[in-house]
Formats: sequence, C-alpha cells, structure tokens
Amino acid sequence: MANFDQYRVNSKKFSFKNHNPNDKSERSKTKEQDSIELTQLATEINALQDILHAEGKRKVLLILQGMDASGKDGTVRHVFRECDPLGIRLASFKTPSSEELAHDYLWRVHQVAPKGGELVIFNRSHYEDVLIVKVHDWIDDVECERRYAQINDFERLLAETGTIIIKCFLNISKEEQKARMQERLADPTKTWKFNPGDLKERELWPQYMQAYEQAIKATSTDYAPWYVIPADSKTNRNLLISRLLLDALKNMKLKYPPVPADYKNIVVKD
Amino acid sequence: MANFDQYRVNSKKFSFKNHNPNDKSERSKTKEQDSIELTQLATEINALQDILHAEGKRKVLLILQGMDASGKDGTVRHVFRECDPLGIRLASFKTPSSEELAHDYLWRVHQVAPKGGELVIFNRSHYEDVLIVKVHDWIDDVECERRYAQINDFERLLAETGTIIIKCFLNISKEEQKARMQERLADPTKTWKFNPGDLKERELWPQYMQAYEQAIKATSTDYAPWYVIPADSKTNRNLLISRLLLDALKNMKLKYPPVPADYKNIVVKD
Repeated sequence: MANFDQYRVNSKKFSFKNHNPNDKSERSKTKEQDSIELTQLATEINALQDILHAEGKRKVLLILQGMDASGKDGTVRHVFRECDPLGIRLASFKTPSSEELAHDYLWRVHQVAPKGGELVIFNRSHYEDVLIVKVHDWIDDVECERRYAQINDFERLLAETGTIIIKCFLNISKEEQKARMQERLADPTKTWKFNPGDLKERELWPQYMQAYEQAIKATSTDYAPWYVIPADSKTNRNLLISRLLLDALKNMKLKYPPVPADYKNIVVKD
Repeated sequence: MANFDQYRVNSKKFSFKNHNPNDKSERSKTKEQDSIELTQLATEINALQDILHAEGKRKVLLILQGMDASGKDGTVRHVFRECDPLGIRLASFKTPSSEELAHDYLWRVHQVAPKGGELVIFNRSHYEDVLIVKVHDWIDDVECERRYAQINDFERLLAETGTIIIKCFLNISKEEQKARMQERLADPTKTWKFNPGDLKERELWPQYMQAYEQAIKATSTDYAPWYVIPADSKTNRNLLISRLLLDALKNMKLKYPPVPADYKNIVVKD
C-alpha cells in the first residue's frame, strides 16, 4: 500500500522541485502484476461505489487537473473501467459559455457537484479560474488571492455537507508532453484531441507551473487536499489514483442501508 | 444477427399479446458463448462510442422503460460495461421536484438530452408522464392523447437536430417481477432498491400494461421507434439491446474527424 504522505501537499513547504514526474514507485516489477493489480483496484472501487450509491447520502468528488496530454481522460478510462454510469458521473469543464461567464466562476461548478450517493469526477475544474486566467494576466494577484480564499470556502461547504474531496494534479514533464502531443498528431484516432492552440499554451510552461504551484499551495486543505501524482508513467498514475480513491472509499466505512425489520415478513403476491 | 423487425413496434397492429416476455431467441446454446458474445458487443459499442465522441456532432439517445425490477439498471450495467464515463451519460428520472413540476413535463427532459458526441441513456423518461399519471387517473384521456402528440413532436425535434433515438420497453412477466422482488427482499445488498410502494403499483399491473400498450402504439415512429424487449431472461435482454444499439451505431457510419492537411508538418518544440 502506498504511503500517500509523500504525494500529499503540505501547504507551507510545497515545491514542484520535490516531485519527480517520472517517479514510478507505485509500480511493481512486472507489467503483468501491475495489470492484475489495476483490475483488482477497479473492481474494489466499483464494489464500494455501489454501496455509496445504495447509501445515497455521502458524496465523493475527484478533481483532475493537469497540463494538456497529462492523462486526465486516460485516468477516467482506467480507474473507472469496472464502474458503470449508475453511480459515476463525469463533469468536463471547457471554455465557459457566455451564460456561464455572466455568473461567478463557481456557479457552473456548483451545479454539477455530486449529490448524495454520487461519485463525480471533474475533468478540469474551477481551478482553471486561477490558472489559465492568471497565466494570461486576465486577473491580477489580488484577485487571484481572493479566489483562492473563495475556492477554499466553497470546498469547505461541500466537505461540511458530506463530500469527500480528492484533488489530483497529474504531474508530467515537459518532455513527456512533447512526446504525447507528437503521438496525437501521428495517430488519426487521436488527432481530434489536438488543438493547435495547445502549442501556444505549451510555450507558457514555466508560467503554468508557477501558477499551479501557487494555487496548489494556497488550496491544499485538510478537507480538500491536493496530491501531486507522478504521471509520466501512465501505469504509475493509474495505480496511485486508484489506490488513493480506494483508500478514501474504505475510510468512509460504507454500508448497505439496514433492512427494515418488517421487510422479512413481506410476501410478494401473485 | 437479430431480425429487429419482430421486436419493433408497428403502431397500427401492436399488442402485447404478440410479445412473449420469456422469449429467449437471442441466446445461443451455451452460457459461455453468450458471455463471450456480450463482451464482444460491449467492446464494439465502446469503440464506436469513442468515434461518436470524437466526431462531436451527432447524438444517441437510448430510452429504457419498464415495470419495477424489469432490469433497467442491469441493462445499463451490462450493455455499457466496456464504456467509460467519457462519452456515456445516464439520466435517471425520479419523482419530479416542485421546481420540475412548476414547468411543463418535458422541461427537465430537454435539459439532459444528449449534446453533440454524447450517448445518453434515459432510465425512465418523459413516458412516465403518460404512464403512472394515466394509471392513477391524474390526467384524463384527452390530456393523455395531447401528450402523445407533444412527445412525438419533441422527439421529432431531437431527431431532426441530429439525435438517433432508440426506445426499449423491457417486457417482463408478472411472475418474473414477483420472483425479482422477492429476491431483492432476501438479499441485503439489494433491499435498498425495494420500496413498499412498489407492491401497490404491482397491483395495478393490468392498468400499467394497458397504459404502456396505448403509449407505445401512439409514439412508435420512424424517427423514434419502440422495441419490445423480451426481458424475463436477463441474457436475452442484454444481447438484444446490445445488438440493437450496435446496429444503430454502425448505421451512423461514424468516422474520426479528418486530420487537417497541415498537421503532418507540425513538430512539437522542446
């Protein structure tokens, strides 16, 4: 079992310097063993998600952030491969619509937050509103600091009303992004994911890393911690996020609702 | 390959009398063969759903209706077991909220209709508004007829704006429902799905069948046909719905978006 402390962000002393994107320490010695392990983890996650759904009270929110091609889609595909859409929901945040922009930036996020019994995955999130907008200087430092506090308040509300929150930054190296982008361009079944604008954002890599470092430092809380996931290795990433999620689900001590005593006498009539 | 005509409702002469809930003709001779087939179908559905998502234009809507314990959840679980939440979305319709009731009955449905690239499953649907309300006489025949026409118009809108619609009635026998309800009561991991009110609805079985027969007859159209799925056998049900859906996806002739010519010269810089 992983020691999650090494990935969990302790606000005060966080720096990307202490996190190696190419760390593979979650992996075992063989691909076969990793593959078996991933299937087992996915099966256990599915079993517990079914109880979460049956319980219908508490909520789980997994937030995935990362640079382009850092593996957000792939994480969803692999970690939840044994789950069905009955208890799992994905919310993807793209460029906001004019309707969404007319509201505050947390409005669209709040609308798709998990309800009782749901496990919701955010593919990108309200963190874009302290990242892309910061990197492009669409907001200044004062506004950015105000947003960190607003985000912490918002997440505290979710946590205090029954939501377990896990935030994962998929940490890839700039070299790995290059390889994955080039791979997308070479594979016609993946090229649709490529956007020429992504190359412009790639040029802003150091600015993004700085914005991420600041945001993560400011918003890793007890009730909504950030984990920096070494993600150059897809297997390492999938194993770690699966383990993190499974650990969180196990800690919830989920149980099927008790069967009312009088149910045992019910006979369904013809 | 199934001949879907025998399940497809031809409005004028439709009667449940010609549909046997215990028909197992989709099944092969062995469980093993059926299991392999189901996995193959699920894998193919997943592959085409990925292209639908990549294309991002057309939409697919699968509507599941049926009596309590007819297997709506089980269908979702099995037919989509190889799919991940990236391209699939489930919308479940429960008792309407006061907000929903303050709008017309199609309002909440329209909000969760599929967008470009999505495959959406409706677990129950706007058909509840010509079923439960009809059986309990909350609407009269005139209003019910008006709703059939409104539903046909609404579905035509969806179809004409790029949605492939498949409507499945999961046809179980009253005996099979009894067995499944009793099973739910006996299994603590399933009892949460049981609601004592379901027994009351069960007593109205003939009224429900009549309401279904009328509704299906009135709303099976070229652009949004109804299929009556023999569903006493779960395997038969899963095989048939998988085949129907796969056939519809194949008929869409889905293709990954063409790669822009200038992409081949792009080199991602360090």
